[in-house]
Amino acid sequence: MTEPTSSASIEPAISNADLFAAIDLGSNSFHMIIARETHGQMHVVDKHKEMVRLRAGLDKSGKLSNKAFKEGIACLERFGQLIKDIPAANVRAVGTNTLRNASNSREFLKQAKLALGHSIQIIAGQEEARLIYLGVAHGLPSSDEQRLVMDIGGGSTEYIIGHQFENSHLTSTEMGCVSITQSYFPKGKITQENFNNAVSKCRQILRPHRSTLRKKGWDIAIGASGTIKSIGVILEINSWTESGITLQGMIELSKELIKAGSADNLKLAGLKDERRPVLVGGLAILIATFIELNIEQMQVSSNALREGLVFDTLGRLNAEDVRETSVNAMQQWMKVDTEQADAVARTAKSLYKQSHNTWNLHSDGYDLKRLLKWACRLHEIGISISFKRSRHHSAYLVAQADMAGFNQQEKQILSSLVVNQRGKYSEESFEEIDDSVKPLMPYLTVLLRLAVRIHRGRDLEQVDPILRIINDKELHLEFDDKWLDEHPLTRLDLETEAKHLDKFGFTLFLE
Amino acid sequence: MTEPTSSASIEPAISNADLFAAIDLGSNSFHMIIARETHGQMHVVDKHKEMVRLRAGLDKSGKLSNKAFKEGIACLERFGQLIKDIPAANVRAVGTNTLRNASNSREFLKQAKLALGHSIQIIAGQEEARLIYLGVAHGLPSSDEQRLVMDIGGGSTEYIIGHQFENSHLTSTEMGCVSITQSYFPKGKITQENFNNAVSKCRQILRPHRSTLRKKGWDIAIGASGTIKSIGVILEINSWTESGITLQGMIELSKELIKAGSADNLKLAGLKDERRPVLVGGLAILIATFIELNIEQMQVSSNALREGLVFDTLGRLNAEDVRETSVNAMQQWMKVDTEQADAVARTAKSLYKQSHNTWNLHSDGYDLKRLLKWACRLHEIGISISFKRSRHHSAYLVAQADMAGFNQQEKQILSSLVVNQRGKYSEESFEEIDDSVKPLMPYLTVLLRLAVRIHRGRDLEQVDPILRIINDKELHLEFDDKWLDEHPLTRLDLETEAKHLDKFGFTLFLE
Repeated sequence: MTEPTSSASIEPAISNADLFAAIDLGSNSFHMIIARETHGQMHVVDKHKEMVRLRAGLDKSGKLSNKAFKEGIACLERFGQLIKDIPAANVRAVGTNTLRNASNSREFLKQAKLALGHSIQIIAGQEEARLIYLGVAHGLPSSDEQRLVMDIGGGSTEYIIGHQFENSHLTSTEMGCVSITQSYFPKGKITQENFNNAVSKCRQILRPHRSTLRKKGWDIAIGASGTIKSIGVILEINSWTESGITLQGMIELSKELIKAGSADNLKLAGLKDERRPVLVGGLAILIATFIELNIEQMQVSSNALREGLVFDTLGRLNAEDVRETSVNAMQQWMKVDTEQADAVARTAKSLYKQSHNTWNLHSDGYDLKRLLKWACRLHEIGISISFKRSRHHSAYLVAQADMAGFNQQEKQILSSLVVNQRGKYSEESFEEIDDSVKPLMPYLTVLLRLAVRIHRGRDLEQVDPILRIINDKELHLEFDDKWLDEHPLTRLDLETEAKHLDKFGFTLFLE
Repeated sequence: MTEPTSSASIEPAISNADLFAAIDLGSNSFHMIIARETHGQMHVVDKHKEMVRLRAGLDKSGKLSNKAFKEGIACLERFGQLIKDIPAANVRAVGTNTLRNASNSREFLKQAKLALGHSIQIIAGQEEARLIYLGVAHGLPSSDEQRLVMDIGGGSTEYIIGHQFENSHLTSTEMGCVSITQSYFPKGKITQENFNNAVSKCRQILRPHRSTLRKKGWDIAIGASGTIKSIGVILEINSWTESGITLQGMIELSKELIKAGSADNLKLAGLKDERRPVLVGGLAILIATFIELNIEQMQVSSNALREGLVFDTLGRLNAEDVRETSVNAMQQWMKVDTEQADAVARTAKSLYKQSHNTWNLHSDGYDLKRLLKWACRLHEIGISISFKRSRHHSAYLVAQADMAGFNQQEKQILSSLVVNQRGKYSEESFEEIDDSVKPLMPYLTVLLRLAVRIHRGRDLEQVDPILRIINDKELHLEFDDKWLDEHPLTRLDLETEAKHLDKFGFTLFLE
């Protein structure tokens, strides 16, 4: 900012409206940071960490144990207290690997929302990787170097190649410090043999990614996450490295761990007790990474996913929403007729404006107006796969493709809208949707369907009918003057649509 | 050809090896043409048509009636007799809309294969459209004009835009002369009102395609198929048009049909009895097409799908296989690492060579060696959607995407191979596969899986192990000298694979 500092005196008093919070429900710990925005810059003002070991609390059936469940909720209640005065739009809370996979995560998320006072979004590994890079990049001095950033989580490890604030390659692998420790060191027992096996397994998991990452190349390697930070501190305090993390230093550490026979028995300067249960798994992952990617030295970043989340939120508020970029990229890849998509989006927007108050199309956690717009812009992506069953192809792509910035729920909402753009209406597709949005899905679907129908002739005409709603489900669509008479095929199309809508409880009248 | 005709005297005696046959099991009639290749040119030497009304024989549950079923088989027996001396590689038989949709089409295809002596391939609407254009284009003088070609089938109507022998846009719509006649003219009754309704319905179906087709544009419009030919003949004989088909002429014909009240009662020069049952539906489709696409005049081609099939077969034998082009285009669209795909394909080819005799990896209707190669080249297309579950995305794309030249069974075989490229083996995915290939699928899958595993490190190394097979399912993979010792991760990977293979009855030894 070029604003002179003297202007501070005429600034309004500091208020909670400038505060942002990011909560990361990781597999091994929950984190929260609170940051303040001043002149478009973020300054972290508070950090919280609790060692909620969700992943370790998974029982054999893949369910969160009672203990882990309760500890998680209790932690979120404390976090919730701390952020109760921060505007909802400034708070983002995300869950990663363990919550992606736990069989009772829906129940957990429901209670978690009540405890925290904000809904928690599940994000895919790719999105996790993107946010990590964003967080780490904001913690580094600006430079022209190509970076490799890695983050070892409890259940997954992410690798990202990037430059400045842009990533060029995102990878998420299914190995984490908790999962590797549990699988290869039963009861915490560490021997040379099981350590070797763990490293081999990690190398095997990395193999399909190795050549792609190496081809992209990097100038510096940076590690983020508690595990990597701990290893860095231990190596330094014990003088096993001069600066940063090295393979030689880690081998020294592994020797000490094997000598001790378990992390619990190890007496070592710099090793915090909270880190003991997962240190050995994290070390195996890191050693495997150094070998496979031929890394000589790694620096440690104190920024991670949560910082990324804060910067991403700020970006959205400043109209630099990466989700827009993702939608554009998808349209381009799938050769969408963007003029047609925009025409549908314009009509849907006009219908939304006329109905959102009556139908109360609002939800705390989701920007339904924009989701409807994106559904319009993406509804035809499946045509490039095949015109036949194209709405299903569109829904498949939206649900399955990596789309930066979108969480799993948003993708689910978009996918369900898109599959219901025409034809038979499938209420089942709403089953996985958040309770806060599920009851609104039929209304959003109707808006999309009407917009799609009206533009079925693909003539890009600007059509802006009046939508009157009576008794919630009786719709009157009024077109200008003789418009419907001049467009008999549109009338026929809308009459066909009226029959479809009838099947899910809406009555459509044309005027 | 520039060859002087006098050379004929030194030509070898005409043999059946130069004969080609194409059979088209349409919804309203079965056609067969026999052609002779001389100097790379095709000359049709015989044509057969039987009015097997498969579509009209569909009962309410979507099943082929007994009568239609038997008539179809009997017709194919007659066709089979006529082509019994033609080499199998020169015969192609395809089924279209009705066989795509009939609930008992698998049973029909099984018996049909026995009757004809060749397996029948179901093709999607897009592929049907491509072959129609190919057939029509070969019947026209070479010209620089952009063409619109349409073909009215019993259950679907195809529209293609093309230039010379290349199409640039393929559309298949779900309306055909049989289906429209049945839906809009119950008991064959023709009134002004139901005729108007039929035309409106067809216009409605055409609406989403209209602007795309118009934007592409064309210089001449050409119609292929019995229905269009009949209408052309009737209009000309009755002097309702000077040349070709016109909207005005068709309106005259529709007046006569409405006046008669049913096609059965109509006395009209040029109208063959076999055409009566479906004429009115075809006329409605054609009138709707003229209105929506603003066509002034349409010429009639006597070539159609079956001619396209013959030229396509010839192309394949001359190494101009459109399937290669499709695979390349898909790789490019999905940004496949082609070097990696080629490395996998090379190893799979080498393994195939060593095993095909022992396992008898041959099938009359399918070129399994090439299908294995294409599976290798396509197995990673899903990564561009998401690395997570990428083998499923690859399988989805192969099964669902339009890929010129491939029939439905070939796509099914490729998709099943691709989804089983690694991880848990799903035998269910083989369920829909032809009995002639199904028992071979596990063997082909093993070859693909081994090739994929060997190249998991993506280092593009040429690896060519010896594969020894003992007692059908005991595999010994021998690598050069110390290769496995030098590649411990590959060894680990193959050991993991051995465990997977064990689950479906194969034992893998590494040497």
